[in-house]
Amino acid sequence: MQEYDLVIRGGTVVTAADTVLADVGIVGEKIVAVALDLPRGAEEIDATGLLVMPGGIDSHVHLAQPSFGGPKMADGFETGTRSALAGGNTTVMPFALQPRGASLRESVMAYHKEADGQALCDYAFHMIVTNADSTVLEQELPALIADGYTSLKIFMTYEDMVLNDREILGVLDSARRHNALVMVHCEGYDAIRYMTERLELEGKTAPYYHGVSRPQSVEREATHRAISHAELAGARMMIVHVSGREPMEQIRWAQQRGIPILAETCTQYVSLEADDLAGLNMDESGGKYVCSPPPREKADWEAIWEGIRTGVFQTFSSDHCPFFYEGEDGKKNAKARTSFKWVPNGIPGVAVRMPILFSEGVRKGRITVNEFVALTSTNHARIYGLYPRKGSIAPGFDADIVLWDADREVTITQDLMQHGADYTPYEGMEVTGWPVMTMLRGRVAMRDDKVLASRGNGGFISRTEE
Amino acid sequence: MQEYDLVIRGGTVVTAADTVLADVGIVGEKIVAVALDLPRGAEEIDATGLLVMPGGIDSHVHLAQPSFGGPKMADGFETGTRSALAGGNTTVMPFALQPRGASLRESVMAYHKEADGQALCDYAFHMIVTNADSTVLEQELPALIADGYTSLKIFMTYEDMVLNDREILGVLDSARRHNALVMVHCEGYDAIRYMTERLELEGKTAPYYHGVSRPQSVEREATHRAISHAELAGARMMIVHVSGREPMEQIRWAQQRGIPILAETCTQYVSLEADDLAGLNMDESGGKYVCSPPPREKADWEAIWEGIRTGVFQTFSSDHCPFFYEGEDGKKNAKARTSFKWVPNGIPGVAVRMPILFSEGVRKGRITVNEFVALTSTNHARIYGLYPRKGSIAPGFDADIVLWDADREVTITQDLMQHGADYTPYEGMEVTGWPVMTMLRGRVAMRDDKVLASRGNGGFISRTEE
Amino acid sequence: MQEYDLVIRGGTVVTAADTVLADVGIVGEKIVAVALDLPRGAEEIDATGLLVMPGGIDSHVHLAQPSFGGPKMADGFETGTRSALAGGNTTVMPFALQPRGASLRESVMAYHKEADGQALCDYAFHMIVTNADSTVLEQELPALIADGYTSLKIFMTYEDMVLNDREILGVLDSARRHNALVMVHCEGYDAIRYMTERLELEGKTAPYYHGVSRPQSVEREATHRAISHAELAGARMMIVHVSGREPMEQIRWAQQRGIPILAETCTQYVSLEADDLAGLNMDESGGKYVCSPPPREKADWEAIWEGIRTGVFQTFSSDHCPFFYEGEDGKKNAKARTSFKWVPNGIPGVAVRMPILFSEGVRKGRITVNEFVALTSTNHARIYGLYPRKGSIAPGFDADIVLWDADREVTITQDLMQHGADYTPYEGMEVTGWPVMTMLRGRVAMRDDKVLASRGNGGFISRTEE
Amino acid sequence: MQEYDLVIRGGTVVTAADTVLADVGIVGEKIVAVALDLPRGAEEIDATGLLVMPGGIDSHVHLAQPSFGGPKMADGFETGTRSALAGGNTTVMPFALQPRGASLRESVMAYHKEADGQALCDYAFHMIVTNADSTVLEQELPALIADGYTSLKIFMTYEDMVLNDREILGVLDSARRHNALVMVHCEGYDAIRYMTERLELEGKTAPYYHGVSRPQSVEREATHRAISHAELAGARMMIVHVSGREPMEQIRWAQQRGIPILAETCTQYVSLEADDLAGLNMDESGGKYVCSPPPREKADWEAIWEGIRTGVFQTFSSDHCPFFYEGEDGKKNAKARTSFKWVPNGIPGVAVRMPILFSEGVRKGRITVNEFVALTSTNHARIYGLYPRKGSIAPGFDADIVLWDADREVTITQDLMQHGADYTPYEGMEVTGWPVMTMLRGRVAMRDDKVLASRGNGGFISRTEE
Repeated sequence: MQEYDLVIRGGTVVTAADTVLADVGIVGEKIVAVALDLPRGAEEIDATGLLVMPGGIDSHVHLAQPSFGGPKMADGFETGTRSALAGGNTTVMPFALQPRGASLRESVMAYHKEADGQALCDYAFHMIVTNADSTVLEQELPALIADGYTSLKIFMTYEDMVLNDREILGVLDSARRHNALVMVHCEGYDAIRYMTERLELEGKTAPYYHGVSRPQSVEREATHRAISHAELAGARMMIVHVSGREPMEQIRWAQQRGIPILAETCTQYVSLEADDLAGLNMDESGGKYVCSPPPREKADWEAIWEGIRTGVFQTFSSDHCPFFYEGEDGKKNAKARTSFKWVPNGIPGVAVRMPILFSEGVRKGRITVNEFVALTSTNHARIYGLYPRKGSIAPGFDADIVLWDADREVTITQDLMQHGADYTPYEGMEVTGWPVMTMLRGRVAMRDDKVLASRGNGGFISRTEE
Repeated sequence: MQEYDLVIRGGTVVTAADTVLADVGIVGEKIVAVALDLPRGAEEIDATGLLVMPGGIDSHVHLAQPSFGGPKMADGFETGTRSALAGGNTTVMPFALQPRGASLRESVMAYHKEADGQALCDYAFHMIVTNADSTVLEQELPALIADGYTSLKIFMTYEDMVLNDREILGVLDSARRHNALVMVHCEGYDAIRYMTERLELEGKTAPYYHGVSRPQSVEREATHRAISHAELAGARMMIVHVSGREPMEQIRWAQQRGIPILAETCTQYVSLEADDLAGLNMDESGGKYVCSPPPREKADWEAIWEGIRTGVFQTFSSDHCPFFYEGEDGKKNAKARTSFKWVPNGIPGVAVRMPILFSEGVRKGRITVNEFVALTSTNHARIYGLYPRKGSIAPGFDADIVLWDADREVTITQDLMQHGADYTPYEGMEVTGWPVMTMLRGRVAMRDDKVLASRGNGGFISRTEE
Repeated sequence: MQEYDLVIRGGTVVTAADTVLADVGIVGEKIVAVALDLPRGAEEIDATGLLVMPGGIDSHVHLAQPSFGGPKMADGFETGTRSALAGGNTTVMPFALQPRGASLRESVMAYHKEADGQALCDYAFHMIVTNADSTVLEQELPALIADGYTSLKIFMTYEDMVLNDREILGVLDSARRHNALVMVHCEGYDAIRYMTERLELEGKTAPYYHGVSRPQSVEREATHRAISHAELAGARMMIVHVSGREPMEQIRWAQQRGIPILAETCTQYVSLEADDLAGLNMDESGGKYVCSPPPREKADWEAIWEGIRTGVFQTFSSDHCPFFYEGEDGKKNAKARTSFKWVPNGIPGVAVRMPILFSEGVRKGRITVNEFVALTSTNHARIYGLYPRKGSIAPGFDADIVLWDADREVTITQDLMQHGADYTPYEGMEVTGWPVMTMLRGRVAMRDDKVLASRGNGGFISRTEE
Repeated sequence: MQEYDLVIRGGTVVTAADTVLADVGIVGEKIVAVALDLPRGAEEIDATGLLVMPGGIDSHVHLAQPSFGGPKMADGFETGTRSALAGGNTTVMPFALQPRGASLRESVMAYHKEADGQALCDYAFHMIVTNADSTVLEQELPALIADGYTSLKIFMTYEDMVLNDREILGVLDSARRHNALVMVHCEGYDAIRYMTERLELEGKTAPYYHGVSRPQSVEREATHRAISHAELAGARMMIVHVSGREPMEQIRWAQQRGIPILAETCTQYVSLEADDLAGLNMDESGGKYVCSPPPREKADWEAIWEGIRTGVFQTFSSDHCPFFYEGEDGKKNAKARTSFKWVPNGIPGVAVRMPILFSEGVRKGRITVNEFVALTSTNHARIYGLYPRKGSIAPGFDADIVLWDADREVTITQDLMQHGADYTPYEGMEVTGWPVMTMLRGRVAMRDDKVLASRGNGGFISRTEE
């Protein structure tokens, strides 16, 4: 008979479909049994009164990403994954950015070097393709896909990353032929340039105007364009970080037509709003909320919930992309004082993704706890090829588990974040529901807000085998 | 340690969320473990190469329902549940029809009497309310809901069942206050009467005109009306047997607005079509396909798939409602020869629901096998309060399990149906995927197309405890 | 050569299509020339700086309509047409209501008797069918249509007027066969009854709750239902007094599908709002604004403008339906003090229709002056068969003309209304643009707010000849 | 009193609003009276039984446009305007194309030189901006707009004309500030390049693949993009030559939101179809139908009619853009034999625009004759600033008149076209309704299919005065 290294006993096991009172038996790094009245394990964890859920998978984080002449990112793999564990996650998927002109393979290797021996939780990489020449599309990309790097991201904006429509179509065509998933940042570069120039001419340079320079119509247009390209090329596509009603409705329209479009939304689009960027009387503190797409109006929060509720969105991510606001080597708003356009785009958030979705979603009756699991873990695993190793609580899966106290009331503070950035844009927000223990492949990695995992505990998850 | 009465070994366990290679351990009537390498059970079933799924729950069947001066129904509880087991189901939910003027309680009791000791699989009842007076709404209904009869159906058409709008609103108001779910048959009675009179005046009386007399606009109008009433009364509603694009789009619109509307579609709306009612050159054989709403066009099949794929529909049912075509005491088309309006409305189908959805849905790539489980079992259990006793494969659930051969090719014939009717409208249809064993509460009830369960093996499932 | 009895010289002649500086030559009751530099007429009117437009046709007014046990209407044909002329109109279309059980023909004759020798401007009748039995549908209706009573109205609410769906379909079927236009009051009777009962039970009886008892969803549902019936019966339909976004969108959807639906909106739906019914702290003065459908929210005004701008609405009417608020024989809120349901439904408005549409529409850039003419005159004439006798300024048309000062600023007061009611719900509203002269068939009928026409000057316009 | 040089007597005068039996009195080049029983003019034309309508204005024709290394256009100003008159038109609006790098002013002057003394009917120019640098946008464009060149066109495709999004936004911004109307050719260049390369790789080079290389999604995407840019820049926009349901729905959506988008469709989108490009068994004769956007499916014809009927489209044009199929200096398919991409894009059609719209629209009950006038003349005049000189039959307008025999049945042939091209894609089409006389500024220019006007009779219409 089976002897268990660890039994999580008496909790409520939640998967994307089911909610059952059961014990979870673990051997080594794997879940081997979900059952009633398991025999005593070598180790026991009492989960009475707690939810036992798959560890969070945050498929959209940026770690150790060098910026182009701008400030350094506030999180490398150590602090970034520490913060992830603090927030109930066991796997993150950062990006390996190809600098213009560099080889895609070398770029991926550079990120491996950043991560090796540093990560506290598991990780896998999406590639960012900035150079879509024929060598990349016909040689590097197929080879990397074959090696299990099966997802890649492209940008429709940002000076050093934007691809034109012909390039986007080239990437999509290659992705279709080689069966990769293309993630797209949908905002129109030329439209943002145009608006930025207009605003600067009018002397409107405060962080607040970051949002004005890229209104929802700009995201909607790029979303429609990306969808049309996917339709033409016959490729699957994931539209990431959808911010409001207008792009959401484009995606819904495409899904109803049968165009194979997936979509992601993020924490900030149901909890931050355009006016946050005004700071205190249009001062630079609004820079703490600068990300792209920018937070929209409260009415858009409802549109995002509508999209979540009706299945438009499959994943809920953080788009964790942290910069220092006043820290040593970057000061988010140094050069930024001269114009919003120099404020680095991105905010930290990997630690709050699950608590905010649980509090605003499950506790407020907008989603079920099973949908919570799907949105924070299972769907990420399925879409990006980590399933059936990650993403559920079932025999054979990695024992990546978060124990969740559904009733715990917490006020979000910078201290709780355990990230590298020197602030959190969610400071002071009150949530109900909090991770009390995170377990990575059978070992306790966080307990009671203390991260116990060490550098190197986290490993790279190859997607070759699927 | 646990000793298992039965272990289903080596199969692929499928739930609404997950697909895992695992063994299922059963003690008595219950599943107690889903695990790797379970110890040998007292009994063993080899499921290698098979899908191990929750037994089907068909939440929309009619059994032993007396008709109003029309022919007798072809299935009582014995033959109806036999056919259900043959098709991979372990629970059916027939209706307890209140005759006009009768007490609701007595009506329910009458159906219990029909079912007691007769059923081969488990069952629970929905009530049909045809008399919505204040005694029914304020006394009988709340008392029955308290007794666990938490779902009821109302009709917007049929002479002896139709409720007017004020009555519908009364039922919905009562349902909101007492927390019941109202199922609605959405077709407009007056519109059908009007069209029937027009057609009869024109001498158009063949079964084919059954469909013409109730075009999609009639169902769409009633659907919009029912939704509006649910919105006004603040009640939850399930729109049953949705047949095509027009009503589907009304439901989708309502769901997007946040009106709490659930929806069901049925086998016939993705496999039968309006022209089937034409029979051979407009002869009476078209009567074999008469049901309401009637089958639509092939383009509507795609609309129904669109609704399934995008989450508009939560349940896929059979609306099994069998009549004899040439049998002893009814001949589906006896009086019916004078006009389509006398053809009894309903077709058998409880045995083909799962095979046809599997074949057309899973095998043709329209849905995943997990969605199949949700549509045929889990969602029925959740929506109608059978969960967590029925509807999944997880510890604590009834051991209601179907073993499914995903590759078996079968031609549907009347013999395979094992129902009381003397024909199947699906005769000759070819499907891939077939149930090879059905297990009811831990006991084999069907194996290799042979129903092994006896009368009385099936029991009434009370919904009081939820 | 032509000698003119009257030349209107130097004005800007506006039709539904064109805006030209031209003279208008009149002989007898008819326009005979629109030309440059006409020779001197027997009489001359200097229209320099003024708009010369077709006299308003208000196709939706209620005059001398007996109520069922409720208060008498505040306007008969004398005061009602006086008020019409004051507001720039030259033709009104009141309703001839069939009391339940009465003959349709007799009902029409009774209204003729009320109007004969009393009217100051021209008029034609729509019938109201409240009794849709076969004698009415197969004998009376065809005969009256043949006599030129080519439009009729039916109600989906009001105790003494509501038709059920079968009756509505009967009317539509008859209308299709005999080529009449069916106008429909779209609000669901049963839904209103249900809400009224709920509100009364909660002690919510102030006039404000009139609006709450018939929310927009109730109008939307009835609108969808009416449209579906028109679709089924193949009849043309005019949906009258559309109040907000929800019914407007139903109509637009139908029009896009090619269902032949026309639509009307009214003054109150772009100028009064739900909160007006609250009066002063929920007192009875809110009763001054009680009409059905009730005024909605300001956001709905924008929806109505959207519908006007994009062609969903063809006519803009007043639904003039005046009752006394404190007057001699009715006191709008006498019995009404016990419940909103006894407040007579209707408000006066024939005198303000054109000024408010001009001010809010033309002056604020929402519509062109040509669209103003179409919405207030030409389209009414075309739809209801008064064209080409009424509805434009062109040779052969009746010389029904309004001279309009586009820049005149006026504050609306009860005095200016010249109607029978003892208040106007538009009191104090400021408008820009005002009729300075109204001419009926070549004779000045109103000048400088003084009505010069006498009883009997207005005549019945038969629609037989078209 | 007035003495008339010419009286058109006894016809049915049709404007965009009205249809009246009246005489039209003309002095010199102008209409001075529309009246009953005009005195005898110096000249008389008997219009009994004919429609008297404003001469057609075709606001979308290409004449004498040099191509970039491709074949010469088949019509210069002489033949192009001859064909226009033959088809009932009195004004055309060709384009003055700015070659890349050239001055906008010089480009306009070059077209004036082509037209001077050559044209048989009146004309005005739209500019085509291919070079959107700051000199053009800030100096040339404002100056030309001030000179009355108030409309300009930009392209989202074609190697030598395409503007990128930043340039488009620059043009729109300038147009907003200087009050010009921007016409946009909406097809995505990069998407077409991508598809063209794919098709050529697969050896699919027949003219048929021209359509496949630019499917409706490509037009839809560009349409959405153009709309979004107009929304961002706050500029008015005219989307030209809309071909099917998908772009139509984008425009409708924008119009409903209040974005100031106008739209045009053309003859070919309700009369030619994708399969026409297949020629005879995929041969080169399909090249006779090559234009951009390409003709779509018959279902799209209905979508275009839906757009016409519900007001999405304001203008109906020909996009006359003629090339030789086998003629002297071009042979439409010479280089074209190697690939569809070398087939010059464009077909002749100025002579059939009015007959086809009349026959398919008015005669088949889809539009009224007044809508016909609006779509072929009045709206063109209003939108492009020719009104109130052109576009109606009313005092003060140019006497540009077409006499139309509504019942004449004609089979379209190359002979009747009187254009420069050596074929017509409409060969053999049968129409009912035909222009029997065209009058330009009071002089007969075409009678009984014989063009009587001489070179130089047509003049340039300055739009400075408006």
